[in-house]
Amino acid sequence: MGSFPGHALPGSFFLFWGLWWGMKSSLWHLTRRNKSTGSTRLPSRAAQRRLEIIESSAIVFCSTVGILVEQFAANGPKLQLYDVSENHWKDLMNWQHSTMYLLFGLAGAVSLIVHTTAAAPLPLDRLMLCVAFFNEGFLFLYHLHGRAMLDVMVHQLLLYAIFGQALIAFLEVFHRGNVILELMRSALTILQGSWFWQIGFVLYPPRGPQWDLKDHSNVMFVVMCFSWHLMFALLFTGLVYSIVSCVVRVRLKRTPPMEMGLLAKPRERDPESEDEAF
Amino acid sequence: MGSFPGHALPGSFFLFWGLWWGMKSSLWHLTRRNKSTGSTRLPSRAAQRRLEIIESSAIVFCSTVGILVEQFAANGPKLQLYDVSENHWKDLMNWQHSTMYLLFGLAGAVSLIVHTTAAAPLPLDRLMLCVAFFNEGFLFLYHLHGRAMLDVMVHQLLLYAIFGQALIAFLEVFHRGNVILELMRSALTILQGSWFWQIGFVLYPPRGPQWDLKDHSNVMFVVMCFSWHLMFALLFTGLVYSIVSCVVRVRLKRTPPMEMGLLAKPRERDPESEDEAF
Amino acid sequence: MGSFPGHALPGSFFLFWGLWWGMKSSLWHLTRRNKSTGSTRLPSRAAQRRLEIIESSAIVFCSTVGILVEQFAANGPKLQLYDVSENHWKDLMNWQHSTMYLLFGLAGAVSLIVHTTAAAPLPLDRLMLCVAFFNEGFLFLYHLHGRAMLDVMVHQLLLYAIFGQALIAFLEVFHRGNVILELMRSALTILQGSWFWQIGFVLYPPRGPQWDLKDHSNVMFVVMCFSWHLMFALLFTGLVYSIVSCVVRVRLKRTPPMEMGLLAKPRERDPESEDEAF
Amino acid sequence: MGSFPGHALPGSFFLFWGLWWGMKSSLWHLTRRNKSTGSTRLPSRAAQRRLEIIESSAIVFCSTVGILVEQFAANGPKLQLYDVSENHWKDLMNWQHSTMYLLFGLAGAVSLIVHTTAAAPLPLDRLMLCVAFFNEGFLFLYHLHGRAMLDVMVHQLLLYAIFGQALIAFLEVFHRGNVILELMRSALTILQGSWFWQIGFVLYPPRGPQWDLKDHSNVMFVVMCFSWHLMFALLFTGLVYSIVSCVVRVRLKRTPPMEMGLLAKPRERDPESEDEAF
Repeated sequence: MGSFPGHALPGSFFLFWGLWWGMKSSLWHLTRRNKSTGSTRLPSRAAQRRLEIIESSAIVFCSTVGILVEQFAANGPKLQLYDVSENHWKDLMNWQHSTMYLLFGLAGAVSLIVHTTAAAPLPLDRLMLCVAFFNEGFLFLYHLHGRAMLDVMVHQLLLYAIFGQALIAFLEVFHRGNVILELMRSALTILQGSWFWQIGFVLYPPRGPQWDLKDHSNVMFVVMCFSWHLMFALLFTGLVYSIVSCVVRVRLKRTPPMEMGLLAKPRERDPESEDEAF
Repeated sequence: MGSFPGHALPGSFFLFWGLWWGMKSSLWHLTRRNKSTGSTRLPSRAAQRRLEIIESSAIVFCSTVGILVEQFAANGPKLQLYDVSENHWKDLMNWQHSTMYLLFGLAGAVSLIVHTTAAAPLPLDRLMLCVAFFNEGFLFLYHLHGRAMLDVMVHQLLLYAIFGQALIAFLEVFHRGNVILELMRSALTILQGSWFWQIGFVLYPPRGPQWDLKDHSNVMFVVMCFSWHLMFALLFTGLVYSIVSCVVRVRLKRTPPMEMGLLAKPRERDPESEDEAF
Repeated sequence: MGSFPGHALPGSFFLFWGLWWGMKSSLWHLTRRNKSTGSTRLPSRAAQRRLEIIESSAIVFCSTVGILVEQFAANGPKLQLYDVSENHWKDLMNWQHSTMYLLFGLAGAVSLIVHTTAAAPLPLDRLMLCVAFFNEGFLFLYHLHGRAMLDVMVHQLLLYAIFGQALIAFLEVFHRGNVILELMRSALTILQGSWFWQIGFVLYPPRGPQWDLKDHSNVMFVVMCFSWHLMFALLFTGLVYSIVSCVVRVRLKRTPPMEMGLLAKPRERDPESEDEAF
Repeated sequence: MGSFPGHALPGSFFLFWGLWWGMKSSLWHLTRRNKSTGSTRLPSRAAQRRLEIIESSAIVFCSTVGILVEQFAANGPKLQLYDVSENHWKDLMNWQHSTMYLLFGLAGAVSLIVHTTAAAPLPLDRLMLCVAFFNEGFLFLYHLHGRAMLDVMVHQLLLYAIFGQALIAFLEVFHRGNVILELMRSALTILQGSWFWQIGFVLYPPRGPQWDLKDHSNVMFVVMCFSWHLMFALLFTGLVYSIVSCVVRVRLKRTPPMEMGLLAKPRERDPESEDEAF
């Protein structure tokens, strides 16, 4: 899928999930913080659980769509792995992308099992997310053989976001419900999404001249550009948190904010907040 | 042992141990979870201890067999390290494999001491396992000098599984009894086992044509194939957990499952479950 | 800014901040330790909060100054990124430095929000500091293409200090208020500052002969010199801690030191002291 | 100091310290474990403190001796850093070794301050040990430019032990008094010491023929040999622990061992034992 839409599609997926996770994490964190005050106005545990189930189903759905697009789009391999007549592998690129989607689908399915039944241990959903991100980064790492300098670089930068997500998800296995980690994961997902769009614009500019893939100053610009995307992702996550915070405050209006702040103190300062425990 | 059976043998060993560890971890976890209900129907602490002793003995036995095979098989060095007449090292490959088995044997022996006497600190068995896996990866790392591209790659991929196991075992020193880590270790062991088989099929195909060891598209396929093995290992571990879970449930049938779920809640949510403490 | 002042300026900034953090950490640690005794003589929580706000504002101010200097100094890009007429990027070096300052400014702004309002989770200030340091190291990492050996080396050594700071700041997200980590961060900041000065003296000696940038023995000296800077930074941080300790002791004179020592014991031994909790 | 004694001397130092730390850690661990029973027969806290002071003084002494030998031995630089007449650095190798000793001396001095006064936070001694080991590894890392393959390899293998020690010492800052980590540090110190001796025998064989420094099979042997040293170090540490254990048991003979075992259970199983807390 070496094309502009081939990068814009996963980019949009990740932007959406980053936004979603940012909203969810902020909402749960603020709900926990204000539990003692008007908890009747905030989503209940049952609602939280329902949301998790919807989220997991959506991840499974997106992954299935991704796999089908990769396999059956115009020049896809159509589930055929080896071309016996011509004696070579068929469209390995598409197969690799399918594999990435497959592991995200598996992570979604495991999350679904974890949240619908009491059979599996709870942190398993984060572990599978970690494995899915690690697998994505792992495949990208061996993906870049023999490409032009700038092409290699933009994909290498992507790896920072991907392995960062894997690391954060792994830490969440041990520090579940830590809002700092959840917001960081959200920000890195947004970073990955926006960087996919950037890759599309750099390698396949929809209009305007092509970039010189061998010019070192382009590499230097691209590195700096990644920093800007990181900053944008952090600011955007902060914005999402603020908006959710305002919405929660409005719903709690009847409790005087002064008192709420005092009540919330001992909880919010806790660096390792406990699990969502629904 | 550059041959198909030379890879199938350790592969089978690791597949067996992965399966065993998956079963054991699942059983202990579910036993702890349901301790409050019919604990008389579940294995007691003495039984757990006996099992650990049997396991350690079996590891020592397997390692000894491995060393003997490496040393005294057809073209082994027969415990001779340096050939003085011809002035070169004898069969360093076999010696390296023997060293790997030796450290696993040591890990088994330490585990035996830890579980039979009260002399040594308990987490020592995991530390020795960590050292044994690290040592295996370390030797493989310096093992690959001057081989063909695909040969190097399949062994490098193996290192992900091996160093992953070492890392997980090291984390278990501090988070002992965490079921997530134990299942992950089980899955990585299965991954290592199945990948050994895959290496055998790639480098020494028992029938059919040889693989082209210098073709880059073969490397790309092999990388993706490793992802599939990872997924298979995770699914297989999940299957083992489910089967053990069903068996435990059947043995606890007299306690109504509804109530059991409620009782289990506060325990199962604990991300860092306490030690086995037998 | 490839010049002596261009390295001395950030060097001075970092030396100042290292000194400041060392003083602050020592003071808060000793205040917490002696809380039970004459706490009326030590800074109150409100004073602590005020200090944090002043610090954050100063960081924002310094970053703004840094950006303005980089952009509007003699040969700066004056906020112009791409020179359309000549078809190349304008002064990418200055833009990269501006980006580094920008993320430090963002970290300061977030810290300001965290300490003035109760809206954001407390550990966010350390996470943003971690991101700012990581971003600085990340940009330096891709900054060194095609330079002379010694030039590359002195900047690579800088990365040890920078990534070390990022790591310590990340650990502080989870172990907030741990005086060991805070003093280490202070020492690494001093190291970074003094090393910036050293880079200035090596690459742009204000007087005396130029260094031979390709001589390997110069590289060996520079590596050892970095060790000496590290030692100097550690000793200096220790000195700061001792002086603050003496000052606190003088202010607490009325409590007999003997008794104070006894009271302090159980607290001071605590490896993970609790948060500042003002 | 490229000579056999130049490697045997630090080797002996590290062997001694590894043995010492192994004995000390075992003794303190077993003392804590048996605290409830005849504690009058075991070393008191005051004795522990005195021992720490003696140890720190000895480290300072050894480092001073090391520096003096490096500086004033036959062909040392005699504290002269730059030879102005010939315009080159003087004996940088000796200066680098002096720097290594210097930071160990500093670690000893800090440990002395930590254990004689109540001024500094306790975990500082481990942090300084971590810095000293890190510094040693760091200097070795940039020490190997332009040497023969086997020479580079034997020093690279040394880095595994050194950075391993730095990592363990850093973990001890957070998990102080964990016997597993302390024994591991002891084992890695013994490994470093015995490997120094091995380097001496490989590079400067006191008798017999020279090794071929470019033969790949020698590299393969050396890698395996490092595994054997690791195993020897682990076994030796285990032996030390057993002997100390026997001595403690003999001194506690009047308490029936059966009962002692029962009393010790709840303590010994604790993976993160508390601080020495004297």
